[in-house]
Amino acid sequence: MLPPRPSPWETDATLTEAQAMAAAVRLAERATGRVEPNPRVGCVLLAAGPVERPRPVLGRGFHRRFGGPHAEVQALADARRRGPLAPGFTAVVTLEPCRHTGKTPPCTEALLAAGVGRVVAGEVDPDPRVSGGGFGRLRAAGVEAVAAPTPGTAWLLAPFAKRLATGLPWVIAKWAQTLDGCVATAGGDSKWISNEASRRRVHRLRARVDAVLTGAGTAVADDPRLTARGVRVHRRARRVVFDRSGRLPAGAALRERGGPPLEVTADPPEAVLRRLAADGCTRVLLEAGPGLAGAFFAAGLVDEIHAYVAPLLLGDPAGLGPAAAGSMERMAGARPLRLVSASRLGDDLCLVYAVNRDPASPG
Amino acid sequence: MLPPRPSPWETDATLTEAQAMAAAVRLAERATGRVEPNPRVGCVLLAAGPVERPRPVLGRGFHRRFGGPHAEVQALADARRRGPLAPGFTAVVTLEPCRHTGKTPPCTEALLAAGVGRVVAGEVDPDPRVSGGGFGRLRAAGVEAVAAPTPGTAWLLAPFAKRLATGLPWVIAKWAQTLDGCVATAGGDSKWISNEASRRRVHRLRARVDAVLTGAGTAVADDPRLTARGVRVHRRARRVVFDRSGRLPAGAALRERGGPPLEVTADPPEAVLRRLAADGCTRVLLEAGPGLAGAFFAAGLVDEIHAYVAPLLLGDPAGLGPAAAGSMERMAGARPLRLVSASRLGDDLCLVYAVNRDPASPG
Repeated sequence: MLPPRPSPWETDATLTEAQAMAAAVRLAERATGRVEPNPRVGCVLLAAGPVERPRPVLGRGFHRRFGGPHAEVQALADARRRGPLAPGFTAVVTLEPCRHTGKTPPCTEALLAAGVGRVVAGEVDPDPRVSGGGFGRLRAAGVEAVAAPTPGTAWLLAPFAKRLATGLPWVIAKWAQTLDGCVATAGGDSKWISNEASRRRVHRLRARVDAVLTGAGTAVADDPRLTARGVRVHRRARRVVFDRSGRLPAGAALRERGGPPLEVTADPPEAVLRRLAADGCTRVLLEAGPGLAGAFFAAGLVDEIHAYVAPLLLGDPAGLGPAAAGSMERMAGARPLRLVSASRLGDDLCLVYAVNRDPASPG
Repeated sequence: MLPPRPSPWETDATLTEAQAMAAAVRLAERATGRVEPNPRVGCVLLAAGPVERPRPVLGRGFHRRFGGPHAEVQALADARRRGPLAPGFTAVVTLEPCRHTGKTPPCTEALLAAGVGRVVAGEVDPDPRVSGGGFGRLRAAGVEAVAAPTPGTAWLLAPFAKRLATGLPWVIAKWAQTLDGCVATAGGDSKWISNEASRRRVHRLRARVDAVLTGAGTAVADDPRLTARGVRVHRRARRVVFDRSGRLPAGAALRERGGPPLEVTADPPEAVLRRLAADGCTRVLLEAGPGLAGAFFAAGLVDEIHAYVAPLLLGDPAGLGPAAAGSMERMAGARPLRLVSASRLGDDLCLVYAVNRDPASPG
């Protein structure tokens, strides 16, 4: 059950295009927290051959850091390190190659110069300045270029696409709960629900988002720092505390010197999120109590859930659930989710769900 | 994530003793619902050879039905079907071989007659009439006989051992919940939480227990039949309704003619369970609402949980949890569970937990 995911570097050297796309997604995920506000992109180069058959992998790459070379350029460099690159190869990339000169030269030109024969791209670039242009440039040069979207490529691009389309960041709501859905007792006690491995994974998540959001209630009750500790930090997330009535004490751990930037705000969630997105935030983490989390859900602001389910049964109807979003008379009115992944951490489970707010949610 | 478990018939033909024991456990589980009140037992025969090395599998067997041949005899027959059985082989069996003549001759004699060289047994037989006797008989005949208990063998034997030790059946509490732990809305609406695949698995479970228990509240609200439909029926579970105030209507689906036996009782849970165990019930399934389930948990009567977690978030603090066992001030007071398995059924998860009531619970 729940085996560790094989590293894309260890996968077989012969892949179908669909397998190559899945490998490219996993490669791209490695850069989470390093490339935003750019989209995460991965690329796998396959040797020329029949389209429907597995083919040898020539090179792999992903966009590793903001301002650095794009995935296609990384994959070309990887291939060249292994030997001469025969023309006619296929580039499998999670996102349409760029055709514009930004911080780096256009990827379409790099692929064409290397003699690419076919390009399979997961998603069309949602940026209206780019959208379809990469495909157009490749086709104009006589190269077959096809879009092959998958749930994995859509999920990978979703935070970037959401910010572009709505001016809002991608919001990940995280909590630790008992099996019966309690994040705290009626009196607010929540020590301890999840295990060491789960808490470590939360630190890893904090180290890959642009901001960590919480409410004054949680800040007062738990006095957290909301920093990433004991893990490799991809980016230093700013902290935001929703505090309408000035409850955050002067001596709160969040206010300790030397920590990441702290904002204490009385503004409503959507206004704060809009400001964060305008300020370059793509993915933010909500670590809040039932009240604030419920308000986020009720306003349709949550995109992803990371629920850590501990092997505990509270059995108390007065225990607090993860989100108090309002009264719901019918079960049919419950918010539908999509299970993205489930992984076992000792006897804890880390369940990742997508919140299906609208048909545009990743499939 | 969550791949299907390979069938023990498909596993490699060369196994270590530990692998053979795990395979024997899986074999034994296939007979769930067919052998009770006997214990479930599986056996794998390995060729003679160094104890610490993988060895060829000679035969496999499990106790298939009450009154039928035991696992060891089945495995010997399987081996003989494949060819002559060279003496000196190792028998890996989940439970100490019997040395008494019951419905079938003693397994110790069958193994000795076949020339067994070594016996590795997971658990010592908890029946005081047998306990250790099988080991003693084998050793007296000059055969190496060792106990090698594992969490899997303990879990397999637990229902049999519990009934023997306590006069109570093994109780499996089953429910379907939203991610945030609601089995119904505040008004009691629970249609529908789990998906078709989950409901099918529940029918499969009903077809493997001795009794299905529910409360009058659930019987009135949902009007269930609590029968196993659309699956292979290993045994026809009787139905028991806890109804202290005569609420079960005369026209309830449970009362339909031709169904399995129905008992409507005003007795408290433990008294009913004791009577069921005395009447031959080893494993019973509790499909009850929060009140009755909570009473079972509060009384320490639940051994195993099957929680079906649907991809839904109710977000209503008034929603009903799976078990209202009482008020709990501290999270440290929550009942500790042990995650036995997690499997994915579409976007539902089936989570199986052991309830750690005391140190005797399986490890």
